[in-house]
Amino acid sequence: MEKNKKIFFTPGPTQLYPNVAKHIKDALSNNICSISHRSREFEVIFSETTESLKRLLNIPNGFHVFFLSSATEAMERIIENCVAEHSFHFIGGSFSERFYIIAKQLMKSPEKLEAEFGKGFEFDLEIPGKTELICFTQNETSSGVAVDMEDIYAIKKKNPEKLVAVDIVSSVPYVNIEYSLVDCTFFSVQKGFGLPAGLGVLIVNDRCIEKSKLLSNKGYNIGSYHSLLSLLSKAEKRQTVETPNILDMYLLREISKELNNIGIEKIREETEEKANMIYDFFDRHELYSPFVQDKGIRSKTTIAIKTPNGSGEVINRLSEKGFVVGSGYGVHKNEQIRIANFPMHRAGDIKKMLRLI
Amino acid sequence: MEKNKKIFFTPGPTQLYPNVAKHIKDALSNNICSISHRSREFEVIFSETTESLKRLLNIPNGFHVFFLSSATEAMERIIENCVAEHSFHFIGGSFSERFYIIAKQLMKSPEKLEAEFGKGFEFDLEIPGKTELICFTQNETSSGVAVDMEDIYAIKKKNPEKLVAVDIVSSVPYVNIEYSLVDCTFFSVQKGFGLPAGLGVLIVNDRCIEKSKLLSNKGYNIGSYHSLLSLLSKAEKRQTVETPNILDMYLLREISKELNNIGIEKIREETEEKANMIYDFFDRHELYSPFVQDKGIRSKTTIAIKTPNGSGEVINRLSEKGFVVGSGYGVHKNEQIRIANFPMHRAGDIKKMLRLI
Repeated sequence: MEKNKKIFFTPGPTQLYPNVAKHIKDALSNNICSISHRSREFEVIFSETTESLKRLLNIPNGFHVFFLSSATEAMERIIENCVAEHSFHFIGGSFSERFYIIAKQLMKSPEKLEAEFGKGFEFDLEIPGKTELICFTQNETSSGVAVDMEDIYAIKKKNPEKLVAVDIVSSVPYVNIEYSLVDCTFFSVQKGFGLPAGLGVLIVNDRCIEKSKLLSNKGYNIGSYHSLLSLLSKAEKRQTVETPNILDMYLLREISKELNNIGIEKIREETEEKANMIYDFFDRHELYSPFVQDKGIRSKTTIAIKTPNGSGEVINRLSEKGFVVGSGYGVHKNEQIRIANFPMHRAGDIKKMLRLI
Repeated sequence: MEKNKKIFFTPGPTQLYPNVAKHIKDALSNNICSISHRSREFEVIFSETTESLKRLLNIPNGFHVFFLSSATEAMERIIENCVAEHSFHFIGGSFSERFYIIAKQLMKSPEKLEAEFGKGFEFDLEIPGKTELICFTQNETSSGVAVDMEDIYAIKKKNPEKLVAVDIVSSVPYVNIEYSLVDCTFFSVQKGFGLPAGLGVLIVNDRCIEKSKLLSNKGYNIGSYHSLLSLLSKAEKRQTVETPNILDMYLLREISKELNNIGIEKIREETEEKANMIYDFFDRHELYSPFVQDKGIRSKTTIAIKTPNGSGEVINRLSEKGFVVGSGYGVHKNEQIRIANFPMHRAGDIKKMLRLI
């Protein structure tokens, strides 16, 4: 099978974290895929996964960790449970737009501020007073633009009574969040954690829970088995409502432990060093250049590069040498490539890949 | 790791299908967990999984196969998309009750016919005329009662204008369904298919799609990314809305192919032979006896056994010998055991287990 040996620099699904195959083997040997989700053994996996994540991401008490099936599901559950009518969305690409569209589909009345694709937001706006929830996509995977968390905190400080939700799908675990200044975050595991897809993680504080209760009491439809209230009542018993993706929860525990052993500070430093190496290379390249021109908003984890001669040629050339990079997103498919820079991506491999470009 | 070698006869999650470990290894070698869910490679997995399932379960054209995260999610999506107000539920245990509760939580006005736990339904009723969707749990995992498909067909024939949904979670692939007489079925993969949990399959016909469109046009909330309309628009491109559990879809393709190679008729025959062996044993046992007394409604796939001296002793005794059986469900935890009889459970192992009882 060595002919298939490749390194995936795609922005998700991406390269698996190195020990995933070993952990899956251990999981199979220990019957992890056969145990009951009502067993003591499962409860240990549930609580250890939660604790490892809380430590890694510096999530304080007063926040709850829930397991869903995708980040897209998280968007739906947040809107259902935290919005009677009015959400407000900062839209700079396809994933922030998806959050907005989901609010529309759920028959809410979302408003938005749009930024040009690849550009930053004008943050000096007044959020409409009726807004209940402000939604940010901290790292827009489609464009390679990252929002500075300080800008999000500033909005929260100006609007302390409004809830703030932050999509950290493609920046976790790199992004450093001060949880006292946000109300909920979410991600999926097939990006920065390098795991098989099929598990989403939703982190909410008690204010979100209270909002969900309030909506339910007022007769709003907050969903069924995955309402925040249903999720909480099971999480308190270290269980889930439905049979979840137990294997992925087990793997998330193992990888979180490994990342904790390395230390989140070191992971952040390395991520920045690797990002600088990639941006420096393309800033100096004759033909290709970073798509995001404002260096202050360039994503450290999902890097979009303009390829004026088309993306296909370089994607194919790299693929032949065993390096898989992503194409541009949507309409930019042929004019950009995207390179992920997650914890499992090693500086040495990035250097080898860049030498081929 | 041999000390952990056990055979799980639990009703789900259960024993993995024998080749699952090998298929996971192949999937990892072929980078299945790293490929994009927008790639040609993924589209092939999507369509081959769908085709293998359609062949195995004899699903005709005009039905659509959608991938969700659990059977519980399927219940939510069916209610959201096929019911404006009135569903009707045949409730004989915890899982049929869950379907009803989900309809309540989604603010519908469900009605129900209840059967005593472990007993059959009185099918000679008039379904209220306003009913839009009739919900059956064909095999009630909590009680070990199976509904004869002929009873479901008879209700459908008397109510041809109403939609009929059938939960086949713990009877698939054994249960033989005439799809011209039902409108939708659903299951998850951690029971009869012996796969890691985290994938649900929803099978709907065009009447369900039409109902979803009608509700949407009338201003009902049909959900967002997993409405039947969203699922259909992506499935037509052999894709999913969100990044799905690609590994489980791959494994479902492989196991469906293996089951097709064995032949569904043979699987059904063997299931019945094994079920007869188990029921015969307990019908003649001094102490233990089948919980479901009416032989006509005894499940072939999830078998509940009364243990008048408590369930703990026999569960522990079997466990020490490497056989894991389930406890009774909920309040019956200590007074029953449940034994699953799925395609991966071999007659020889069942005999060995029974000898220990």
